[in-house]
Amino acid sequence: MPIFLSRAQALSLDVLLSRINAQDVAWEIISANDSALPTIQGLSTLGAAGASDISFLANPSYQAQLSSTQAAAVIVAPEVEQALTSQARLPSFARVVTANPYLLYARLAQWFERIRQPVVAPGIHATAVVAADAVIAAGVSIGPHCVVESGARVGANTALGPGCVMGAGSALGADSRLYARVTLYPGVTVGARALIHAGVVLGADGFGLVPDPSLGKGGWGKIPQLGGLIIGDDVEIGANTTIDRGALEDTLIADGVKLDNQIMIAHNVRIGAHTAIAACVGIAGSTTIGQRCMIGGAAMISGHLTLTDDVHISGGTVIGSNISTAGRYTGVYPCASHQDWQRNAAVIQQLGQLRRRVRALEKG
Amino acid sequence: MPIFLSRAQALSLDVLLSRINAQDVAWEIISANDSALPTIQGLSTLGAAGASDISFLANPSYQAQLSSTQAAAVIVAPEVEQALTSQARLPSFARVVTANPYLLYARLAQWFERIRQPVVAPGIHATAVVAADAVIAAGVSIGPHCVVESGARVGANTALGPGCVMGAGSALGADSRLYARVTLYPGVTVGARALIHAGVVLGADGFGLVPDPSLGKGGWGKIPQLGGLIIGDDVEIGANTTIDRGALEDTLIADGVKLDNQIMIAHNVRIGAHTAIAACVGIAGSTTIGQRCMIGGAAMISGHLTLTDDVHISGGTVIGSNISTAGRYTGVYPCASHQDWQRNAAVIQQLGQLRRRVRALEKG
Amino acid sequence: MPIFLSRAQALSLDVLLSRINAQDVAWEIISANDSALPTIQGLSTLGAAGASDISFLANPSYQAQLSSTQAAAVIVAPEVEQALTSQARLPSFARVVTANPYLLYARLAQWFERIRQPVVAPGIHATAVVAADAVIAAGVSIGPHCVVESGARVGANTALGPGCVMGAGSALGADSRLYARVTLYPGVTVGARALIHAGVVLGADGFGLVPDPSLGKGGWGKIPQLGGLIIGDDVEIGANTTIDRGALEDTLIADGVKLDNQIMIAHNVRIGAHTAIAACVGIAGSTTIGQRCMIGGAAMISGHLTLTDDVHISGGTVIGSNISTAGRYTGVYPCASHQDWQRNAAVIQQLGQLRRRVRALEKG
Repeated sequence: MPIFLSRAQALSLDVLLSRINAQDVAWEIISANDSALPTIQGLSTLGAAGASDISFLANPSYQAQLSSTQAAAVIVAPEVEQALTSQARLPSFARVVTANPYLLYARLAQWFERIRQPVVAPGIHATAVVAADAVIAAGVSIGPHCVVESGARVGANTALGPGCVMGAGSALGADSRLYARVTLYPGVTVGARALIHAGVVLGADGFGLVPDPSLGKGGWGKIPQLGGLIIGDDVEIGANTTIDRGALEDTLIADGVKLDNQIMIAHNVRIGAHTAIAACVGIAGSTTIGQRCMIGGAAMISGHLTLTDDVHISGGTVIGSNISTAGRYTGVYPCASHQDWQRNAAVIQQLGQLRRRVRALEKG
Repeated sequence: MPIFLSRAQALSLDVLLSRINAQDVAWEIISANDSALPTIQGLSTLGAAGASDISFLANPSYQAQLSSTQAAAVIVAPEVEQALTSQARLPSFARVVTANPYLLYARLAQWFERIRQPVVAPGIHATAVVAADAVIAAGVSIGPHCVVESGARVGANTALGPGCVMGAGSALGADSRLYARVTLYPGVTVGARALIHAGVVLGADGFGLVPDPSLGKGGWGKIPQLGGLIIGDDVEIGANTTIDRGALEDTLIADGVKLDNQIMIAHNVRIGAHTAIAACVGIAGSTTIGQRCMIGGAAMISGHLTLTDDVHISGGTVIGSNISTAGRYTGVYPCASHQDWQRNAAVIQQLGQLRRRVRALEKG
Repeated sequence: MPIFLSRAQALSLDVLLSRINAQDVAWEIISANDSALPTIQGLSTLGAAGASDISFLANPSYQAQLSSTQAAAVIVAPEVEQALTSQARLPSFARVVTANPYLLYARLAQWFERIRQPVVAPGIHATAVVAADAVIAAGVSIGPHCVVESGARVGANTALGPGCVMGAGSALGADSRLYARVTLYPGVTVGARALIHAGVVLGADGFGLVPDPSLGKGGWGKIPQLGGLIIGDDVEIGANTTIDRGALEDTLIADGVKLDNQIMIAHNVRIGAHTAIAACVGIAGSTTIGQRCMIGGAAMISGHLTLTDDVHISGGTVIGSNISTAGRYTGVYPCASHQDWQRNAAVIQQLGQLRRRVRALEKG
């Protein structure tokens, strides 16, 4: 369905593939019924593809759609190509055979994205407020109504969307992109090639309180948050996510970390390289997450914990203790019809009693 | 307590009711003790109402408050009116008897809201940045520090609050209202009569990643999000909610959907007409929700699922599989005192063992 | 690690301590090995402190770090001082002995924070849009791209960061600080000494809906939110938190309440004085929370409930009924390896059956 190239811009399948980033990926093109290679204007799902689209099969559960797709070409794995050519009726689409169809699809999508995205012209919009001592590198674009405070630094070719705020002394690396209304508190540092979505808040105060008798019964004194927030290279941060600054030491997000929307990362958390975290996750203060972890949506991780590398947390799971062994962890009460749940929930609240009754039976 | 009309503006009860939207709702006015109808200045709860307020009884659990309310008039159901008039002491307030008191209250509140809300004067504020080729219909108001990019379209009588951003090619229908700092990414389409609260982000990238060996061990490549986001008519979206654009096809929010605050809707989700979703809910990618569903606060719904029409999910429930039958579903671990919970939680982690012990006992 | 004073600014330990807020806190300084008191430039953790830093020991689990810390001085409790001086090797750092090390650390941090924070010069930035009839007290700072609508009031010495919006008739007390992009809807009132972080939305509509047959099958009518939002003195609100206005009466946040990031508080909620709520918590409509409660991260509290004073809710817990006794409450399904969880979850869904089997065994 999405058409990205006009008919005049359409490219022959082989020419299109010659344009993409081909590092560490190889493929073979097989034409349909020995006919000429199709010309391609867009990229689509198997179900929605039209006669000028290329599509892909990465998830085996969609394999049945191969028999009805209208796509001009499909990226497939070798075993799928084998299955296709062993059928009586040969497929009507060209195939691009590769060991990793999902990666080749991503590379193609990256090419279409570059084509589609309007070039952001460098320059500082007339309505932006940029401190005289801010350091703005070459090729930078600063959008309308941005505020760049004293001593802030913006790396080469980085673009700030409308309404972004960079606090005093904050820094953004080169080739980064901030969408609208991103806020960096003073002193926050972000590396190169960052992609930060609208509404993100980086470096707000961590939640530090101390009971203070001078403030009356129950009164809380504030523990100022004197630490910083340091974010590595190649980090993506989804819309309305918040990452707090540290209390004394810094909150640290390593290179290649990927964060979805509405995530909350508290003060002094450390997240290892290439860890990916889905939406609505909360990580409490001073917890350390290893490298290459995957954390499912809405999982919640308590404070002062350590999770080792390569840990996979299922969505919705609450983690309350350290994890020192790689692997998958889950803790979600299974959903049921409300009636069944009422029955089970009643027993759950008497489990200790139930166990005692079993013990009594065992003792005869 | 809330007074909306000055004493001079006060309206006789019957005149007030003649002004509201009366479609599909009927009522009968019964004066108190055959006295004249009261004049009304405001609308309030039974507990807080004063002698110039109208109130309502929609929830039977508040019925006891009828004996002490100071309200001048109360909207009640026929059975409540019957109970009131069968008492020895007749009520001192006028009654508006109707089959659906909650609906009549809503219609009255809608009238007071229109009276109270200042008229937003059409026009583009001097500080707004509006592209020359944006299409702005008649009666539109664009607030201070808004940014409307190239090709964006705003329907008639729509109002944008301060600091809103409409990306290139995005569109808003007629008679809509955006509060402060709402962001539409490029190409996002919203229908007529939308009500969108502050901090909402529409059309940010979905969370699309692929392991990419060219980026080192554990490195993630980005899957560009080339799809769009299409939102129907009569949709309300609460503060700081985020809805992502699709990966290839569009994310779809149907007519009449109501979304509370801090909801997260991932890429390629489809939500059917008139579904209402309470705050803090997360819906993972490619899930389809039916029509007229109700989803309680903080529920989390996994990706690639299908929920049929008229499904009701209890608050806090995690949904991990398809639901093909209408009805209510729940899955929340029941809360207890911390001590009791510790006991039960210990048994929960040995349930398999407990079942084996019961089996052994059964075998004798 | 964090150095806040240059070498020239460094203060002798006793002079530094003479500068802090000493209300309700006392201490004794003990030099290391009878040497002179050290001069201090910064404040740090035991692990990261250097030779010009003061540190503290508040959490016994870090006590082992005393043997390796490089700190020049450490705040300790009397029993720790006793343990230190009973060792063969006396500590190389000066000690500040006090009954409440965490409070003394907080007071020191507060002093360093004041030193570090740049003074915000009063004045209204040229790009701010301030209504002619807004009431701006002395010493107020209004940052770039702020919008202050008609009749809004700002108390003395209050500072608004970039891009804040104060709706018509809203009010902020004295000595408050709003970071970037905070939104107050019309009529919202906030007390003195507020600290409100970026992206906060105060006073958006509560989620009020009524089935309205005139809108078709399943159609929802809107219940306008005519109430307000009143926030007391000394309240802190974390980034991207949202608090809705009331439906008819007001939403109320009492004095001294502390709210972390991404909290959602629905319409007509009342929160008692000095209650502290961690990140990602949701509180549904019309619930009343007592004074001095502590609510752990990601807890969810249903609507129309009452929680008494001094209730402590564990993180991740869902509260579905009233709590009338102070104490701690928990309800989290314990996490396990995915394999173990699958086994336990299967039994959970058959608990009613398991109980019946135990009953049958008991009956013999």
